[in-house]
Parts: sequence; structure tokens; C-alpha cells
Amino acid sequence: MRSYRLEGSGGTECLVMRDAAQPEPKPHEIVVRVRATSLNRRDTMILNGTYPLPPRHGVVPLSDGAGDIVAIGDTVTRLAVGDRVTGSYFARWIDGRINAGLIDQLGCTLDGMLTEYAVLDEQWAARLPDHLDWHEAATLTCAGLTAWNAVTSTGIPKPGQWVLVIGSGGVSLFALQFAKLLGCCVVAVTSRGEKADRLRALGADLVISTSDIPQWGATVRDQTGGIDLVVETGGPATFAQSLIASTLYGHIVLLTLQDAQGGPIQLPAALYQRSLVTISRLFVGNRTNLEAMMRAGSQHRLRPVIDKVFAFSEAGDAYRYFQQGDVFGKVVIDGA
Amino acid sequence: MRSYRLEGSGGTECLVMRDAAQPEPKPHEIVVRVRATSLNRRDTMILNGTYPLPPRHGVVPLSDGAGDIVAIGDTVTRLAVGDRVTGSYFARWIDGRINAGLIDQLGCTLDGMLTEYAVLDEQWAARLPDHLDWHEAATLTCAGLTAWNAVTSTGIPKPGQWVLVIGSGGVSLFALQFAKLLGCCVVAVTSRGEKADRLRALGADLVISTSDIPQWGATVRDQTGGIDLVVETGGPATFAQSLIASTLYGHIVLLTLQDAQGGPIQLPAALYQRSLVTISRLFVGNRTNLEAMMRAGSQHRLRPVIDKVFAFSEAGDAYRYFQQGDVFGKVVIDGA
Amino acid sequence: MRSYRLEGSGGTECLVMRDAAQPEPKPHEIVVRVRATSLNRRDTMILNGTYPLPPRHGVVPLSDGAGDIVAIGDTVTRLAVGDRVTGSYFARWIDGRINAGLIDQLGCTLDGMLTEYAVLDEQWAARLPDHLDWHEAATLTCAGLTAWNAVTSTGIPKPGQWVLVIGSGGVSLFALQFAKLLGCCVVAVTSRGEKADRLRALGADLVISTSDIPQWGATVRDQTGGIDLVVETGGPATFAQSLIASTLYGHIVLLTLQDAQGGPIQLPAALYQRSLVTISRLFVGNRTNLEAMMRAGSQHRLRPVIDKVFAFSEAGDAYRYFQQGDVFGKVVIDGA
Amino acid sequence: MRSYRLEGSGGTECLVMRDAAQPEPKPHEIVVRVRATSLNRRDTMILNGTYPLPPRHGVVPLSDGAGDIVAIGDTVTRLAVGDRVTGSYFARWIDGRINAGLIDQLGCTLDGMLTEYAVLDEQWAARLPDHLDWHEAATLTCAGLTAWNAVTSTGIPKPGQWVLVIGSGGVSLFALQFAKLLGCCVVAVTSRGEKADRLRALGADLVISTSDIPQWGATVRDQTGGIDLVVETGGPATFAQSLIASTLYGHIVLLTLQDAQGGPIQLPAALYQRSLVTISRLFVGNRTNLEAMMRAGSQHRLRPVIDKVFAFSEAGDAYRYFQQGDVFGKVVIDGA
Repeated sequence: MRSYRLEGSGGTECLVMRDAAQPEPKPHEIVVRVRATSLNRRDTMILNGTYPLPPRHGVVPLSDGAGDIVAIGDTVTRLAVGDRVTGSYFARWIDGRINAGLIDQLGCTLDGMLTEYAVLDEQWAARLPDHLDWHEAATLTCAGLTAWNAVTSTGIPKPGQWVLVIGSGGVSLFALQFAKLLGCCVVAVTSRGEKADRLRALGADLVISTSDIPQWGATVRDQTGGIDLVVETGGPATFAQSLIASTLYGHIVLLTLQDAQGGPIQLPAALYQRSLVTISRLFVGNRTNLEAMMRAGSQHRLRPVIDKVFAFSEAGDAYRYFQQGDVFGKVVIDGA
Repeated sequence: MRSYRLEGSGGTECLVMRDAAQPEPKPHEIVVRVRATSLNRRDTMILNGTYPLPPRHGVVPLSDGAGDIVAIGDTVTRLAVGDRVTGSYFARWIDGRINAGLIDQLGCTLDGMLTEYAVLDEQWAARLPDHLDWHEAATLTCAGLTAWNAVTSTGIPKPGQWVLVIGSGGVSLFALQFAKLLGCCVVAVTSRGEKADRLRALGADLVISTSDIPQWGATVRDQTGGIDLVVETGGPATFAQSLIASTLYGHIVLLTLQDAQGGPIQLPAALYQRSLVTISRLFVGNRTNLEAMMRAGSQHRLRPVIDKVFAFSEAGDAYRYFQQGDVFGKVVIDGA
Repeated sequence: MRSYRLEGSGGTECLVMRDAAQPEPKPHEIVVRVRATSLNRRDTMILNGTYPLPPRHGVVPLSDGAGDIVAIGDTVTRLAVGDRVTGSYFARWIDGRINAGLIDQLGCTLDGMLTEYAVLDEQWAARLPDHLDWHEAATLTCAGLTAWNAVTSTGIPKPGQWVLVIGSGGVSLFALQFAKLLGCCVVAVTSRGEKADRLRALGADLVISTSDIPQWGATVRDQTGGIDLVVETGGPATFAQSLIASTLYGHIVLLTLQDAQGGPIQLPAALYQRSLVTISRLFVGNRTNLEAMMRAGSQHRLRPVIDKVFAFSEAGDAYRYFQQGDVFGKVVIDGA
Repeated sequence: MRSYRLEGSGGTECLVMRDAAQPEPKPHEIVVRVRATSLNRRDTMILNGTYPLPPRHGVVPLSDGAGDIVAIGDTVTRLAVGDRVTGSYFARWIDGRINAGLIDQLGCTLDGMLTEYAVLDEQWAARLPDHLDWHEAATLTCAGLTAWNAVTSTGIPKPGQWVLVIGSGGVSLFALQFAKLLGCCVVAVTSRGEKADRLRALGADLVISTSDIPQWGATVRDQTGGIDLVVETGGPATFAQSLIASTLYGHIVLLTLQDAQGGPIQLPAALYQRSLVTISRLFVGNRTNLEAMMRAGSQHRLRPVIDKVFAFSEAGDAYRYFQQGDVFGKVVIDGA
């Protein structure tokens, strides 16, 4: 079987394809025939050596992937051959809070999904909704769950309240979709006005183009009465506007902490002085969260948005395409 | 102008219509031309002398009503002539928690809405969504807000989770509608199977007829994986089944506490022993809740369900019709 | 080595002592030289066949015990030889929520602590505070953790708020002690007025003797302004008084669900109609809770209250003494 | 009677004493003979024109003051002549959330307490604990309530968890005292090591001198296992160290947003990347919070810490002394 391996952290040339024997599952393991994978920003950070958690040398990359189980170990009971599954980002984190003993990640310290056959502990995977095709099913693990937890993990906004998303990357589009499931109104802020129609088609009630209104915070606040939850993926470039846009008791989930030059977010004192906005963070989520998200997705037959699909042999191109940044949804790689 | 007054608590003969001069607002008051009102169980309890809060003699009955403002006092700033408004159940309770100083209720200790012109403090009313007609607008104050708070006031259920409602009274249908706004799945339990289609049309994902399945708890649990939130309007007749239907960490909002004979709810020990279900109560809600509910209703153009409309002169018939109990949604009385 | 085994469920004659070879730890296991154990009501229910979770035939009884580690398996890293430890009630439940896969209990479906040497997975134990002697250290697992979670798991009461405890069993005395750590005021209700001084010595601000004031609810409410949290261990005999004693937004943690005759709790309709009290349940707790409790106990050098200590050979007497019910704190059995 | 008035915002020369007739209460008002007042940073900001909420010209300054009621209006029922009271900071904010209609503040947009007789709406005051003398009683309104809400308003830390306070101003010392009431451990960080003994005497479990350890974050984390709640009054000078000191799921209540030069807080990206710390803000609190704090203070006979007392005629000196910044507790001004 063929697997990509990460040998170093110097960009796409460190991504090498290797041949190996078909894996045999240990008693607690499952073998998954991977049908598709997808990319997240953390994968490019891992590739470029800028990810906070150092990857294992030779690791199979990518946390996100979907496939069907082709073999199981003797003691496996949670899952069966033929089940369609995806992996769980923090593989060992099942429920409750994360701690230092649970930080292993697929595609970083544990072998991930950019491989023909992935071998996972039976606890590290979860069953997929039936209505998703393989490309869609390969997008949930990281961006999907991050967005789900951003809108449901603390103080779920109520129907009629406003959620703001920034850009059209995977997390933002999932957050838009999940916020609509919650009955919320959504503002989408984009630097590319030509995407407005697609954002509206996904349910955005208001689309703001930053080229038209660079200082969009006050406009958003005026038109909405104030944002109740910001899924902040813009970082220093957008934080102040997000704060201005927020309602007095708003909530900002901060997912991006620096700009391309590494510059940090500043808390604008005069603005924040008049605000009771809570700022919080999250780390993707645990398997229980993943299962809850998939239950919601299944019930609503929610379909992830895919920007482009690459062949398995073109994984490097997929990384390069993803890194240029102008995407609308997820970048997917077909199975081997 | 004409008003009904409650003179005693011996049933509908205590409901008498009186004439009075057109009211003049004091500085903080508004005068509302009432266009429609609606009935709640508490109104029949007040009429029959079984309501926990003793009504004032001669009070204008009914908490629920909608109309347009025809006059305002000199210091009124929140509202203007021409505004379409409804009253707030606990008129003095604006936000936060209720306390003994805030318990006055429209249609009980304060004059209510079954009148041609209602006089309210400007703090006791809230603006209505534009999309509702007068009949619909007259149904929100008590049943609507009770249902809204039942599904949003503590631990909002997430999309994909299950909410259970019992019967087809005002609170239950509103709860069904609001639960769908939250992205939840809904089970409706009804003693009258012929209502199943109408419940499904409102969004119920599963309808259980208690004549088909009297012990429906286990069936519901099997078919849903367990209910996350029960809006318990059935009382002793349904509580045990609600508990059986609930998921381990479920939540039961208890709105009915006794059966027609006054018999109490029992907590079945063997069942509850294996359960972590939380039981909570609520008192309708405050004005801030009411405004949040109307914002959600407005955004989703939610339309309350009306069972039947009576003329102002037939208010007694409306009470009698409502008391027989077999309704599907709200019983409305036209304005004078 | 000597262990008690539970062979059947017909009372203390099913409790038999057996000899066995000194255990060898598997790679993930630890061997604990048990220095003391203690009894909880669930242990008598297990003995008498009335516990909801059926015990394994021949199981070593008792969840609560403390000892020092004398051997560890090859892969053990959390703990070391010489560590003083106690077991965790739901051994597999580490953090977050419990589920069907995590319900195994020490002394019921898993071998417990009434043995010379206990063999535990390294994940099933936690380190003890230094200041406790073995008798005290053997009392934390079940009653201690139940009480800790009753006062800290949802809506921690604030300093100056009131907590009510009932009787002088292990859970009640721990709840009294923990409530004082939180800065709360405590009412202790007891059927035996002669215990009042000891309850006051533990920190009770108010002691009510039910022989003096059988209907104590209103008295407690008048003297405290209303109880914010009731740790309800009295069941049907006390529930109505607990509800009367509670403040409008109070909280009752319901730990006892039936009386000696199996009669259930009734929710008194007229009382609960005027109340917003939340009723909740709990299942002891997970290992993370246990560690948090021991951290608090260590910081405050909290000393569990011990009623009486029995020799290992007199375990049956200990069970019989415990079952008669008139205790003040924990009944302890010395190590073998 | 004599009152100070604020005539302009150019520092202490704008603080002028005026004579006026003894006030008569309107029907809803009370007249308080002010016995002592105290200073908060907001008072110097108001004096210097840097406070976000513009003061009314000629306003009586200071939110914090205590006195006894000498006259009441005809409709007053909450309070009586002779009651010892203090004012509520946001006078109109009784419970729940603040909003634009509730922002009036004593000593800013409403006449405050630096006067011989203060006239307050009966809703704007709350009864004092008996055990406090007038100097102590005058310190609660702003700093006391801010500290109380910092430690109790969201996610109350549990006994055994760690709270960190910075400096020895009023808020920090109250936070230290309240955190000890909650059963928490407390780290006090101070730039003046000579205050260590006094901080320990108030209950600090660990005192860190920033002159000894300028980068104290890692030291604190190592010695405590991580801080669960930081009461962040240090601003840009300390924020990064507070973040380093925090445990993974910690909480920082941000009370100071800029340094003396107006420089803002930066969120250090590399640190915050590895953290799930929540950052929140608060605005002092409402009257319900104030009453809860005073109930706790009364129960525990908590005594506020007073740095220095000035005569009424030396109010300007008090302001100047307070502004120099090196205080240990509250700066108090005697009544006229």
C-alpha cells in the first residue's frame, strides 16, 4: 500500500510517498481503506515547521479522512467491517477536558489519513452520516468540529441572535452552516465580494465585503443590533472590527492569533473598556463532540462545501493550492 | 369603552362586561386599543379560584392580548403611538430573576387585556413582530414565552438532540415550533392520533399516540436514543413515561404538577435511581425573554397556531370551549 | 493473602473470607497493600441484593479503601511503589460524562478493597493527601466524592448562601464540611438532638432536631431566608420539608429516592407550584472529581469523621453495625 | 449642608465645596447622613476627564459612601429611618444584565456621596452589615463589588483551586479576601516586597515580589500547578505573565486595559496558542450582587482593609494621595 510520510518540515518536498505492506490490525485496532482526505491550516503549519506540537518524523500526514473499515482486531466491539468512519482529531480525547496525556493528534504525533490504509485504535474513529459522499465525509474532523464547538460549546446563541463569520475557509463555512441550524442569523465578512452570492446561498443573512467597507464593525453593529458570537478566524486584521460589531455581552471565539507576519492581536483599550465581550479559545474537540456534530449533520443532511478535489498522487499540489489561501470551503484529496 | 371584569371566582358567571370612560394615560402609561386576546390555563384557574396568586376583585382578565397604542403619557419614551404591542406577563419583571416584589401579573393582580382599551405602564409592554396578524400576536405572552423559556432558558439542546412535547395545547405547539428553530428533533405525544398529521406538519419528527402505545417511554427512547429535553405538560399521567424516555443526562421542565383530581407527581424510585435527569420549573418569563422570543419569531416568521376565534361578546363561550381541553393551539378572542 | 468475597446476596453470611496467592500486577496494574476500608449504604444494598447494578459473583466487596502501592506493572507511569492511594468508584470513568461503557464499580462488578492486597489498573486509583491517616483516607471514594459533587458540581453556592444537610451519615457530614469550605452557612437537620453539639463542632451554623420540630421546613426558611442547596439524603421522609425550606431558586440534590418500605418521593403540587427549585441527581463522580476533592481536602487539611473502627476479621460486624443506621460519620474496617 | 461638587475635569482644583439647604426627600427618596466615603480609580479618572462615561457638571463625586438614613419619602418601603446603608454603583441596575438605560452611576451622572447628606432613590441603596464601622462600610460599593463579581460571577473557583491577585489596591485585597472565603488558595503578586507580610496576614498562600522575579508567570505556574482565576488589575505590564501562570482552562478577569501611557494589552500568540484561557470583563455589578456580597461579608465578618483616612475638608489631599498609587487597601474620607 502507498502512504505519504512527512520527512522533515521544510515544505512540500518533505512530503514523500512510500510503499509498505498491507497493515494487520492489533487486537484493539481497525484498518480503514481511506477514500478521501482534506487539508486544514494546521497541516501546512506542520509541513512548514510552525505548528506548536512537533510532528513525529515520518508520520503519515492529515487528520481529516474518511473510509470504510476493511479489517478489525479481535477485541474490537465499537465498530465493524464495512462501517464508514472518520478519525478523531485528538485521538485519545474521548470526553470531558483535554489534558497533557491526551494531546496526540492524527497526522502529527500519530499516523494520519494520507495513506491507502489507515490503522487506528477503535476508540479513535467515529461512524459517518449516511448522506455524505466520501469527499464530504473527509472534511469533518478538524474544520467541521472546530466550527461546531465554536457555536455550541459555550453559551449556545439563541434563535434570532447573530453570529459573525470571517472569510470562506473551511471553519467559517461550517460555522455559517451550523449557526443556521441553531436558528441564528449570520453575517459573513469577506474580502472578496464576488463570493457574496455563494455565502448567501449557504444561508448568510448579511454579507459584508471588506473592500467596500474596510471598517465594517460599526456597520455590522448598526444593521444587526450587535453580534452575539464571533467565530474569529481573521486574527489581528479583524479583531478590532469584531469587537466593535459585538453586542455588549457578546462572545468572541478566537481561532487565529497572529497575522502572516506573526504580529499579535491587540485589545483596543477604549473599545474594550465599554464592552463585556468574553474572549475564549478552543482546541477542535473530543470524540463525543464529533459524534454530536455528526448526529446534527445527519439529522439536517448538512453538506460540507468543497472547493476543489485533487488526486492522491497530487497531494503536493493540493497543499500548494490550499496555501495560496483563496478558497471557498474544503480542499480534498482523493483516496489512493 | 367596554371591559370584562372578574367579580368573584365562581366560573364564567363571574365574568361580567362593564362600560367605562375612555382611559387617559398617566405620564408613564400607554393606552392600547386591544385587537385580540387569548386564553391560557391560568385564566381558567383564576376564574375558578384555583390559581396560586389571588386575583384582585374586579380585575380585567387575561394576560395575553395585542393591540396598537393610541395614546401615551408625557414621559413615555420606549414606545410611541401606533406601535403594535403585547403585554408582559409579570409586568414588573424586566430582567434577571423574579422576586416577591415583581409578581404582579396582567389579568390577575393587574388589569389585563380583555378590554377595549388597556392601560399599561410603558415598561409592561413590548413591540410585536410585523409578520403576525392580531390573532397570532395575541398568543405570545404566556404560552409562547413559557415554551420559549422551556427550550432556551437552561442548557439549550443542540441540533440533532431530541425534545419531547405532550399534547397539542398552546405551550406544547409553541415548544414544538421553537425546538425546530433550535435544530432539534421533536417527538410529539398525543392522546388523539387524528392530530398526528397536523403535528407532523408543524415539524414533529415522530408522533406517538398514547392510545396505541400507553407505555410510550421505552418506545420513544428506543426510537430516538433518548430525549434530551421534555417539556412536561402532562403531569402525573405522563411523568414516569417522560423519565423512561429521557437520556441519561436529560432534562425535564415540569409545567404541570397535578392531575385533574389534584393527585401529585411521584418520582419512581427504581427508574430515577438509574437516571441523572434534572427536573426544573419556570414561571413564564420576563420582558427581556419576551423580546428575545419575538426577535426569534420575527426572524423565522414563526406563526402561532390558532385553534378557534371567538367574538369579544362571546368571551364566556371561549372560556368554556377552552376548558373542555381538546384544542390544537390557541383559543383567541377578538377585540371589542 | 486474605480477601473477603461476596458469594450470593443474602446478607452478611454471603461475605466469606478466602485465601489466595499474593497477586502479581499485569503491565498496567498496581498492587495496593490495603490499610483500611469503609462502608457505604451501597455496600449493604449489594450485600442484600437491592443494588441496581448486579455484583459479580465472588467479587471482593467495598469501593472505599486506602493503602500503599507495593508493586507496579512494567508500563505503569502515573503511580509508583510507595504511593499512598485510594481507588476511584467508577473505575473506568476518568473525566466528562459517564456512559454505559464506564459503569463498572469497585466492590461490585470489579474487585474492591476488602482484601489484603488489591489489584487495580493504574488508571483506577488516585494519590491521597498526606495529612490523612489510613482510617480517614479510606472514607473518601464514595461518600466523600458524592458530597463533594453535591456541593460543587452545578451552581456552586456562594459564600453567605445556605446549604442544608440531613442526618449524620458519611455523605451528610462530608457535605457539611465541604459547604463550610465554600464559605456557606449550613443547617444540619437531625432526628437525634444529642448530636447537635457534634454537628455544631463540625461547623453547622444551625441545627434542627426533627423531634423538636417535625415540620421544620418553614422554621428553616424563616431562620435562614431560604436554603440555596439541599443535599437530600432523607428521601420521602424529608423531601417536602426540604422544598419548603428552599429559597425560590433553590437546588435540591436528590440522593435518596425511597423510604425503608420502598415508598417513593411525591412532589407536593401546591408547594412546588410556587417554587423554581431545581432537582438533580448525581452518581458519585469521576476520577478528575476525586482528585479535585483531594486537592481541596489537602489544602484545608480536612479530616473525615469516623464513627467506629472494626478489625478486618470483624467485617460482618461492621456491616451489621452500619446497617442499624445510627452513626456519626464513617464506619471503618482495618486492613488485614 | 456641605457638598463637594465637580466643576470641570481638570484635576483636584475642579473639586469645590458648596453649601446648600438641607435636602427634602421626594416620595421615593431617602436622605442619608453620610459618615464616610472612599476613593476608587474611576474617581480620579472622572476628575481628570479620562473616564468613559462623561460626568454631569456640578455632580457630587464618589460612588462609595456609607451613612444612616435620616429621612424618607412618603412611599418608601424598602428602607427606614435609622438604617445603615451604602449606595449601589449603577444605581438603576437592580438585577440581570445591564443595558444602555441603566448606566447612570453615583458620583458621575448622578450625585454621589462626597456630601453631608446624600439623596437617593430608595432603590439605589442597600443595607450594611452590622459588624462594619463607618470607614469600612464606605469601601464596598465599587472595589468590593468588583472583586466579589470577579471571583463569583462566572465559574466560581472551587476549594483547592488557585486565584491570583496583583498589587495591593482595593480590588486586589478584596479579591484576596473573597477568594479565601471560597476556600481557594491565593497568590498575591506585588512590586513591593515589603508588603508581603501584610498580604500573607490577609490569607495569601504565596506572595511573589516582581522585583525578585520579574518574569513570575512560570514560577507561579510551577509552584501552584497553574492559576484557575486571575483578577487582572495589572494590564499590559502583567497580562503575559498572568497567561503563563494560568492553568490550561484558566480564566482571566480583565479589569485594567491600558498602561499609564495608554498602551494596550497584546495577546501573545505563541503562548495563547497553547492555552484555553477565557478572558472576560465586568462592570462592577448590580444591587442584587451588592446584597449577596454584603451577606457573605456579614456571615464571615469580613473586614475591608483601610490604608488611610482623611478629613472631609481634606478631600483634595485624599485624591492626591490615592493617585500616587502606593496604597494598601482603601483610601477613606470621613463624613462632613
